[in-house]
Amino acid sequence: MSLILALDFGGTKLAAATVESSQREWLRHDHCLSPANADALSDIEIMRSLIDSVLDGRKPDAIGVSFGGPVDADTGIVRLSHHVPGWENIPLQLLLEEEYNAPVSVDNDANVAAIGEYQFGAGQGYETLFYITISTGVGGGWILNGKTWQGAGGMAGEIGHMVVDPGGPVCLCGNRGCVERFASGPYIAQNAKELLEKHPPHSQGGTRGDILRHLVGNDLNKITGQLVSVAASHGDELARAVLNKAAWALGVGIGNVANLMNPQRFVLGGGVTKAGDNFWAIVRKVAQETALPEVNFEVVRAVLGDDAPLWGAVALGLDILD
Amino acid sequence: MSLILALDFGGTKLAAATVESSQREWLRHDHCLSPANADALSDIEIMRSLIDSVLDGRKPDAIGVSFGGPVDADTGIVRLSHHVPGWENIPLQLLLEEEYNAPVSVDNDANVAAIGEYQFGAGQGYETLFYITISTGVGGGWILNGKTWQGAGGMAGEIGHMVVDPGGPVCLCGNRGCVERFASGPYIAQNAKELLEKHPPHSQGGTRGDILRHLVGNDLNKITGQLVSVAASHGDELARAVLNKAAWALGVGIGNVANLMNPQRFVLGGGVTKAGDNFWAIVRKVAQETALPEVNFEVVRAVLGDDAPLWGAVALGLDILD
Repeated sequence: MSLILALDFGGTKLAAATVESSQREWLRHDHCLSPANADALSDIEIMRSLIDSVLDGRKPDAIGVSFGGPVDADTGIVRLSHHVPGWENIPLQLLLEEEYNAPVSVDNDANVAAIGEYQFGAGQGYETLFYITISTGVGGGWILNGKTWQGAGGMAGEIGHMVVDPGGPVCLCGNRGCVERFASGPYIAQNAKELLEKHPPHSQGGTRGDILRHLVGNDLNKITGQLVSVAASHGDELARAVLNKAAWALGVGIGNVANLMNPQRFVLGGGVTKAGDNFWAIVRKVAQETALPEVNFEVVRAVLGDDAPLWGAVALGLDILD
Repeated sequence: MSLILALDFGGTKLAAATVESSQREWLRHDHCLSPANADALSDIEIMRSLIDSVLDGRKPDAIGVSFGGPVDADTGIVRLSHHVPGWENIPLQLLLEEEYNAPVSVDNDANVAAIGEYQFGAGQGYETLFYITISTGVGGGWILNGKTWQGAGGMAGEIGHMVVDPGGPVCLCGNRGCVERFASGPYIAQNAKELLEKHPPHSQGGTRGDILRHLVGNDLNKITGQLVSVAASHGDELARAVLNKAAWALGVGIGNVANLMNPQRFVLGGGVTKAGDNFWAIVRKVAQETALPEVNFEVVRAVLGDDAPLWGAVALGLDILD
């Protein structure tokens, strides 16, 4: 029996866990929010203490790591973090190998979560799948014939910046109408806010925006993607329209990917996927309509939740030991 | 030295060729247009005589086949042809194996052309590439880590039906604003024709459409994609606008694919790619703008021309012998 150490360097959260290689439950599990002024060194320092806590004096046989940003999976060198400064070109694999004297495998969080869902979650038995996380950003990870696919430069999976509406609003990436520009949590919030700013309270009668406005006590800066979902579930038509557009963008993106790569399954995780049955119905309907009739696929929920990257890290560790 | 027999069942053309396994020039090569009222049986009959002609009494050691329609590459069973009736579920691999007593490998034309360009053309040395043919239709074939990728159901590569403008015109596939709806030869012709119908001769002064109109003697049904290119190269602004839109759609599609799969190269073939330098400049510019800045790739011309499927069929044959 081998001990696997799984690490998750998220944008806002750090987590570590241990598992015996034959088990499917955590031996120990600990996590911690990344402080607001975090940098790479402080993240590593915090992770070190989490590792100490979960190892509890034992030595790991293999270490799998999920990192929230682009990584060269061959060398385990981090390119950068989009959230935390100082991660440019940090040789994370080497650092961990030297400190813990065990083999280490590192990949970016979307790829690792894809492996997690493939090995232990909603992708079990599906050799070819695309995992999509719809959260602060929209990203994806490929499993092709049971192996991850990172692309020639490690950048594959960026469904978030697929353009689905060239006349749409401008995204942070510079293009108009990317999937992420409609479907990420922060953009859902921003789109709702902008619509509310255009429609003063009660201007249209009915429930266009009033429920959402009420939820934030009329302080539109407090709107979050989650609150837009809550408002929609209570019948707010403006909130529903914003979510429907998010679901539509995601559906077009999924249909386009189905035509292009023909995977068996799409596994969707991340906070935005909790937006309710109507959201899911639109995603599935639009995806089906966008794909050619001969292209078959399913769109299903991720099941590992926030632990998908950690379970994927376990799979990376197991892969080293094989 | 082994003898490879390469076959190309195109939508409108049938071709056969032989090559010695160590050579890169055809030993014999013959082709024939598919008759207007062709069906699967007549195509097979014509191909049989082409095969007799190129084999010249010799026995092939392996047979590679490019088929113009979806194929199950594992079994070599044709699903259907979009151009010729009667091909539904024809076990082409088995038929050829029994008739010529040699191992046979069959795949669809976009995949086979991709292999051709990868092994013998513009993709040599690039393990990860996407081949796109822009012709009567727009289709694609994947090479990932040196191997073809057909997808879970054999349908991968359909960049032609990626939606790039959801408010655009309706495509035969039922969606609006697919890449093919703007970029295929017949749709380029149709789009030019529709614009000319809206603008009576000389209505705007200048050269908006007059050159194209002149080229077809004012019979708008005679417009082809190629004539739109000719008119554009002579300064016809309407023809240029139609071609620019085609190039734009293709560029968005390529940029989206780059973000999603991160291949090293895009290799573009087919008649529409002869539309001139301005067409290529727009494709490259829009593709680069659509892709994330960290995603690197090149967009290059296919070099094997109409023989790409036959050379790919040679690669299939060589692969059997390996």
